[in-house]
Amino acid sequence: MPRVMNFNAGPAALPSDVLELAQQELLDYQGTGMSIMEHSHRGKAYSAVHDDAVSLVREVLKVSDDYEVLFLQGGASTQFAVLPMNLLKAGQSADYIMTGSWSKKAFGEAKTVGTVRSACSTEVDKKFVRVPKQRELDLDPKAAYCHFTTNNTIAGTQFDAFPDSGQVPLVADMSSDILWRPTDVSKFGMIYAGAQKNIGPSGLALVIIRKDLVEAGREDIPKIFQYRTHASNNSLYHTPPTFAIYMLRNVLARLKKNGGLGAVEKHNRAKGKLLYDAIEARPDFYRCPVEEGSRSLMNVVFNLNTPELEASFIEKAQAAGMVGLKGHRSVGGVRASIYNGASIEWLEALASFMNDFHKDA
Amino acid sequence: MPRVMNFNAGPAALPSDVLELAQQELLDYQGTGMSIMEHSHRGKAYSAVHDDAVSLVREVLKVSDDYEVLFLQGGASTQFAVLPMNLLKAGQSADYIMTGSWSKKAFGEAKTVGTVRSACSTEVDKKFVRVPKQRELDLDPKAAYCHFTTNNTIAGTQFDAFPDSGQVPLVADMSSDILWRPTDVSKFGMIYAGAQKNIGPSGLALVIIRKDLVEAGREDIPKIFQYRTHASNNSLYHTPPTFAIYMLRNVLARLKKNGGLGAVEKHNRAKGKLLYDAIEARPDFYRCPVEEGSRSLMNVVFNLNTPELEASFIEKAQAAGMVGLKGHRSVGGVRASIYNGASIEWLEALASFMNDFHKDA
Repeated sequence: MPRVMNFNAGPAALPSDVLELAQQELLDYQGTGMSIMEHSHRGKAYSAVHDDAVSLVREVLKVSDDYEVLFLQGGASTQFAVLPMNLLKAGQSADYIMTGSWSKKAFGEAKTVGTVRSACSTEVDKKFVRVPKQRELDLDPKAAYCHFTTNNTIAGTQFDAFPDSGQVPLVADMSSDILWRPTDVSKFGMIYAGAQKNIGPSGLALVIIRKDLVEAGREDIPKIFQYRTHASNNSLYHTPPTFAIYMLRNVLARLKKNGGLGAVEKHNRAKGKLLYDAIEARPDFYRCPVEEGSRSLMNVVFNLNTPELEASFIEKAQAAGMVGLKGHRSVGGVRASIYNGASIEWLEALASFMNDFHKDA
Repeated sequence: MPRVMNFNAGPAALPSDVLELAQQELLDYQGTGMSIMEHSHRGKAYSAVHDDAVSLVREVLKVSDDYEVLFLQGGASTQFAVLPMNLLKAGQSADYIMTGSWSKKAFGEAKTVGTVRSACSTEVDKKFVRVPKQRELDLDPKAAYCHFTTNNTIAGTQFDAFPDSGQVPLVADMSSDILWRPTDVSKFGMIYAGAQKNIGPSGLALVIIRKDLVEAGREDIPKIFQYRTHASNNSLYHTPPTFAIYMLRNVLARLKKNGGLGAVEKHNRAKGKLLYDAIEARPDFYRCPVEEGSRSLMNVVFNLNTPELEASFIEKAQAAGMVGLKGHRSVGGVRASIYNGASIEWLEALASFMNDFHKDA
């Protein structure tokens, strides 16, 4: 079967050439007679992959030496708890900017660890159709950190300009849009992201954290949850998810070869334009519930006039080789997740399908 | 390059046919036009793999309905902390049987969470050359649980008969010998294991836990660390490491097809005998430091008369296609890890090499 057009929200599409390389090497990684999965995480072959992966994260995202680059397990959901366990101490409070389900989950987990407050919420009638403006933020200048979600996969919203938290360390869950464009890492205390959208397979979380925050973290929690443990062991304190890191390495090497994040951004903006244009060309037929200025270039959500029409759209799209277009079960509608792994050709095909579907309806 | 004989301690050798299947399906999982890595963890294709993986664990290990089967992230090292976070409450104490580095790490992490005591240690002069007998155990009948490590990868020791903890839930870290033989799960409150020895690639932990312990677990810790969260969501509370679970499924399907754990045990006993016989046939030349009755059938450790001779042994073995034979950096010597993925032919080759090396020395 030819490869389908995969609009899944995550785990998501990976570049075919990255998968092809993994396939070629699966039983014999570079003439070692073993799969990369079978190599010791302390051996020469894997160590080179691991170090290369760290270097590529640093190079592609221009991460300065003031930051640690960590490969952890448990996805972003584990960081929801591990972040406050490290950085939220007794007597302190942390700010959370609430823009969707994932912010709520992060907030909920932090609440079991310490004191947290909502610095803003854009929820109206159980829906989040926009991200807040800077002037709406009620920020605590003494907060341990200020947390937000850069891109909201379910609501289909995304921050263009990031919040300014002043001297308070800004912490971003970038799970669904890391690497989508050049990012000034120096604005952040910490960035974290589950790998399964723009980075590689699931089971890996990338954490980029300022060294002073690592140092300041609590020392009375289990070692495995202390950022310093992983920082001082180059993420080899325990056996890392070696295959996922190998895939991350290959995704980043390809991204670098293809022109880096500048080229990625151009590509993603062109993809997003194709889709939003297709929606707006037929405003009586397709509607995007997200306010302009907050619209995500990673997860494009839209509605048709009835749930039946939406179901028919999704079914016919699937028949045309486009999978994963069903909206999140909590909000319904249509969602096209168009992460870095989605090609411009897929977006052209989707836009063209939308045109045809409208004509036939 | 032909596949080498891989005696790594973990990540370890995987069966070639399991890797070949993964290779075939890597870009197109069963005609879906996508890699299993690219499928949504809530979609039909992956759900079938996931449910099949749970069923196979239950079937192969004869796990009754009194137990949950969970797929978690963070390896066994994360369970060192998560176990006491769930099951060790204020006012309680937990017993730890100390048989090596891993027991010590588990003990150390639990100490940051609550009160723990050593129920026994076989450490003498910083070495662990045996596991304890039942009569040596100083067990607390009121302990929250009693923890031990079934197989010690560094020391090369293994429990044949398991400790009897009476009414106290017995908790076993089986990372390095789960699935090596039929195991009576009903003797345990909980079994956990990192995947990267006998189960699949790294980045996955298998947890088998009695339902009453799940229910009794603390509710005031972050949700992501509560066993009940994963139990009530069939390990799909957050995105699981889908590729690793797919590999686990394939490893177990193969194991079942090849006769189940009875056949695996027979195979492993034959492999161990070949190697221990080769050591004992030349007692002036090869020495196993581990006491009889405690010798591991997963990690066979032995010494030659000088570190130079050991280095030469390891180097020449490598030249003969046998990799991963260097002992753990904390103890030196030679170590052959002969998990389920190691074939009898590899052991015949190693035994024959030992014979030749002795002759030539």
